[in-house]
Amino acid sequence: MTQKTAIYPGSFDPVTNGHLDIIDRGSKIFDRLIVTVLENPRKNAVFSTKERLDMLKLILEDYTNVEVDYYQGLLVDYAEQKKAQVIIKGLRAISDFEYEFQMAMINHKLNPSVETMFMMTNSKFSYLSSSIVKEVASYGGCIQGLVPDSLYDLILSKFQADIKCDTIL
Amino acid sequence: MTQKTAIYPGSFDPVTNGHLDIIDRGSKIFDRLIVTVLENPRKNAVFSTKERLDMLKLILEDYTNVEVDYYQGLLVDYAEQKKAQVIIKGLRAISDFEYEFQMAMINHKLNPSVETMFMMTNSKFSYLSSSIVKEVASYGGCIQGLVPDSLYDLILSKFQADIKCDTIL
Amino acid sequence: MTQKTAIYPGSFDPVTNGHLDIIDRGSKIFDRLIVTVLENPRKNAVFSTKERLDMLKLILEDYTNVEVDYYQGLLVDYAEQKKAQVIIKGLRAISDFEYEFQMAMINHKLNPSVETMFMMTNSKFSYLSSSIVKEVASYGGCIQGLVPDSLYDLILSKFQADIKCDTIL
Amino acid sequence: MTQKTAIYPGSFDPVTNGHLDIIDRGSKIFDRLIVTVLENPRKNAVFSTKERLDMLKLILEDYTNVEVDYYQGLLVDYAEQKKAQVIIKGLRAISDFEYEFQMAMINHKLNPSVETMFMMTNSKFSYLSSSIVKEVASYGGCIQGLVPDSLYDLILSKFQADIKCDTIL
Amino acid sequence: MTQKTAIYPGSFDPVTNGHLDIIDRGSKIFDRLIVTVLENPRKNAVFSTKERLDMLKLILEDYTNVEVDYYQGLLVDYAEQKKAQVIIKGLRAISDFEYEFQMAMINHKLNPSVETMFMMTNSKFSYLSSSIVKEVASYGGCIQGLVPDSLYDLILSKFQADIKCDTIL
Amino acid sequence: MTQKTAIYPGSFDPVTNGHLDIIDRGSKIFDRLIVTVLENPRKNAVFSTKERLDMLKLILEDYTNVEVDYYQGLLVDYAEQKKAQVIIKGLRAISDFEYEFQMAMINHKLNPSVETMFMMTNSKFSYLSSSIVKEVASYGGCIQGLVPDSLYDLILSKFQADIKCDTIL
Repeated sequence: MTQKTAIYPGSFDPVTNGHLDIIDRGSKIFDRLIVTVLENPRKNAVFSTKERLDMLKLILEDYTNVEVDYYQGLLVDYAEQKKAQVIIKGLRAISDFEYEFQMAMINHKLNPSVETMFMMTNSKFSYLSSSIVKEVASYGGCIQGLVPDSLYDLILSKFQADIKCDTIL
Repeated sequence: MTQKTAIYPGSFDPVTNGHLDIIDRGSKIFDRLIVTVLENPRKNAVFSTKERLDMLKLILEDYTNVEVDYYQGLLVDYAEQKKAQVIIKGLRAISDFEYEFQMAMINHKLNPSVETMFMMTNSKFSYLSSSIVKEVASYGGCIQGLVPDSLYDLILSKFQADIKCDTIL
Repeated sequence: MTQKTAIYPGSFDPVTNGHLDIIDRGSKIFDRLIVTVLENPRKNAVFSTKERLDMLKLILEDYTNVEVDYYQGLLVDYAEQKKAQVIIKGLRAISDFEYEFQMAMINHKLNPSVETMFMMTNSKFSYLSSSIVKEVASYGGCIQGLVPDSLYDLILSKFQADIKCDTIL
Repeated sequence: MTQKTAIYPGSFDPVTNGHLDIIDRGSKIFDRLIVTVLENPRKNAVFSTKERLDMLKLILEDYTNVEVDYYQGLLVDYAEQKKAQVIIKGLRAISDFEYEFQMAMINHKLNPSVETMFMMTNSKFSYLSSSIVKEVASYGGCIQGLVPDSLYDLILSKFQADIKCDTIL
Repeated sequence: MTQKTAIYPGSFDPVTNGHLDIIDRGSKIFDRLIVTVLENPRKNAVFSTKERLDMLKLILEDYTNVEVDYYQGLLVDYAEQKKAQVIIKGLRAISDFEYEFQMAMINHKLNPSVETMFMMTNSKFSYLSSSIVKEVASYGGCIQGLVPDSLYDLILSKFQADIKCDTIL
Repeated sequence: MTQKTAIYPGSFDPVTNGHLDIIDRGSKIFDRLIVTVLENPRKNAVFSTKERLDMLKLILEDYTNVEVDYYQGLLVDYAEQKKAQVIIKGLRAISDFEYEFQMAMINHKLNPSVETMFMMTNSKFSYLSSSIVKEVASYGGCIQGLVPDSLYDLILSKFQADIKCDTIL
C-alpha cells in the first residue's frame, strides 16, 4: 500500500460549513489531505491569503492527516510537486457542475496521472457558497450555521455590519 | 494507513470501454477495488449475471488489486459488508447526473460512513453507454472502439446481426 | 378579497416527508388547499387510490384548510371545477424540472386562467421521491425520516421486508 | 455546388406543429429534405407507419423539395444510402438535449461523413411533443394549435374522446 | 381569510414584457402585489432607480392591487417589514434556474416564514431579459415586442441609436 | 439550387482546435462559409482583431469556400448583408447551451429569415475554450493539442511564460 494523498483546492473566501463538510469526509478516505488556498491574481478576494490560511488552520487543528497550504499556478503542477494522486472537488446539487467538469478534463489532459474526484456536498449545504456568505453578511444578515462557529466573529469583522441573529438557525 | 477499499457497482450489460477506463483509473487510487455486478430483478438484462462476471474477469485479469463480484440488495449494505469506504461512480459530461446525485444522497442517508465519489468519464467516451452499445449492435452497426476488443465476439454473438466494420473506428 | 384556492396534485405512491413539507408550507399561503391524488390508468401504483387517500387524511387531519381528493382526467379541468386559481408543484433542486415546466406550459395553454406555481422542496428532502422510498423499502432498508412516522408501518407492510433501522436517521 | 440533402428523422406519432415548424425552416436551408418516419420495433406507436406517412404527405404536399419516407435500422446507414450530408434534429429549450447529443456523438463515430445539425424549436412550441398531444387527447382536451389543422380529425379519431374546444387556442 | 401579500423583486433595468406578464398573472393570485426595484450598489444599472420606478408606475397604473416600491438590503427583511408571505420569481425555461433556487434556499434559511414561489415565464418570452434588451438596443436593433409599447421611446432614448423597425415584430 | 451561405461567428481569442473542427465540418455542408470575428467593445480581448484575423487566415488558407471577416453590430444585420441563410454555432456537451439558445431565439425574432444551426463539438474537444487556453498559457502550461500547431508560437508569445511541454499531448 502506497500513501494516498489528495488535494482539496479552493478560494475559501471565506471558509464555509460546506467546505468543512467536504474536508471532514475527505480526510477519512485519503491518508493525507492537503487543503490548498488557490491564489488567483485576477480575482479580488475579500480575505487575504493569510486570513484564509488562518481560518483553515483554526478549524482544522484537530485533523491529524490534514495540512493547510497555498499555491499560485497550474493545479496539476502543484499536485505533482506534492505527490498527490487526487484532486477533490465538492459538487453542490445546485452547482457550477459544468465548470468543474471542464476544469477536470483540462487537468486530465495536462497531467493524466492526477485524478479529479467529486464528492457531493451534503444536501443541507446545497445552497451555500462563499459568495452567498459575503452577500448575506454585507447586508447584516445572520451567518450562523453558514460558517464554522469559531470563524463567526472573524468573518463578520470584515463587513462593519450590525449583527442580526434573532434565532439560532 | 488503513487499507482503502472502493466499490465500482454497475449493470455492465455489457461492459464498455467507458467502464474499463473508470476501473483502470480507480484501481490506481484505491488499495483494493471491487467491481460489482448489481442484479436488478426489475430490469431485463440482455446478458446473464454469469456472462457479465465472465466479461469483467476476462478484461481485468491483469489488475492485481481488482476483484469481481455481484450483489442484489441495498448498495450501502454491501459496502458495509465488504468494509468499503467508498463507492465510485463514473459521470459522463452527458449523463444521468441528477439520478446519480439522488442515489448518492439517499445512500449517504442510509449509511453516512460510506462515501460516493464521482470520477469524470474520459471525454472520448462521453457518448458511450451499455444501452448505446446494444442499440448499435441490434442494427448490425460496428461496435469496435465501444467495447474492449477481447469482448467483441462475445457481445456480438447475442445479436445475430451481420458484423459491419468497414473501418477500424 | 376573494378566496384563493390551490391544488397540490400528485401520485403520492406513497406520501413522503417531501410532500408533507410542501403541503404544510402551501397551506399557509392559500386560503384553501386541495391535495389531489391523480389516478393514472397507465401507471401501476403500488398503493391503491384508497390507501393513498387514507395516508393523506391521516397526516393532514389537523390542517383545517386542507382537503383531500382524487381525480382522473385533465388537471386544468379539475382546477376549473374546483374554482382553483393555482396548481402547486414542488421542485427538487434535483428534479424533473423540465418535465414540470412542460406540463405547466401545456396546462397554461389549455386553460390560461389556472396558474402553476412552483415551491422549492426543502433542501434536506432534495433526494427524496416516492420511487426512492419504494426502492429502499423493497430491499429492507430503513425508511424512517423519509416518510411521516405515522405512515411508517402502513408503507412497510406492502413490502414484506424485514425492517432494518439500527439508528434513527 | 453539390446538392445538399438533409434528413429529418422522427417518430411523428403524431405529427405536431413543432415538427412542421422545423420542416418548414429546414426546407429553406437544404436543397432536398427527406422527412423519415423511424420505425422502432421496441416502441408501441399509437399511429401505424402508414398513418404517420399519410399525415406527413398531407401537410407537406406543397413543399416541392421535401420527400416523405420511412426506415428501420441505423440512421447513419440510411443517410449514406440517401446520399444525405446532414441529419436535422429539433431541440426544444425544454428538451431531451443530452439524449440528442449522445445520439449525435455515436452517429458521428459510426459515420463521420454525416453531420447532425440542431435547430432550435420555435419558443411558442417549446412545451410541445407527440407525447403531450396524446396525453391531452386521451383526456378529451383540446389539441387545436398543437397539431396542424388538417390533421385534427384524424388524430382525434384515435382517442374516442369527446372533443372539447371552447375557445380557439 | 387573511390578506395575502406577495413581493415581485427585480432589477427592472429596464422593464420587459416578460416582467409585465409575471406581474399581470401574479396580481390575480395574491390580494396585494408589491413590485420592488432592488437597488444593488455593486451593479451598474443603465436606468436610475427613479427611471425604473417611473417605468413600472406607468405600465401598472391600472392595476388596483399592485404597488411599486424600491429597496436596498436583504430581501427577507423587506418582506417581513411589508408583512408579505410570498416572494414571486419568474423562471424562464431558459433561465438562471440554479441561481434562483440558491437564493430561495438561503432566503428560506434566513426567514422560514417567507416563501419563494416560482412562476413560469410565458414561453413566448423565454428568450427575453433586460440584458438582451440592452444588447439589442445598443446596436440599434428593434425592441418592439420586447418591452411594453408605452416604454419604447423612453428606453431607446438611453441608447442614442437609430431606431430600426422595418416590421412590427 | 441557390447558393447556401453560412456564417460562423466568434471571438476567436484565440482560435482553438475546437473552432477549427467546426469550421472544417461546416465547410463541407455549406457552399460558402464566412468565419467572422465579432468585435465586442465591452470585452477586453487578449488578441487584437488583426491578430485574430491573421490566425484564421493562416489556418484556413487551404479551404477554398471559406472566407474570413470581422464585424461589429447585430449579427442578424450582418447575416442579411452577406446574404447568409444560416448562422452556425458549436455546442460543447459542456457548454453555455442556454446562452446560445437565448441568442438564437432573439436573433430569430429580430430576423426570422436567418436560421441558427448548432453543431456538436467533437467530444475530444468538449473541455476546450479560448478561456481555458488563455488560463493554461498564463501559467506556462502546455497548450499543444489545444490550438492548431501553426498558431502555437504566436499564441504563446502573448504570455511571456516559459513553454513547458514534456510530452506531446
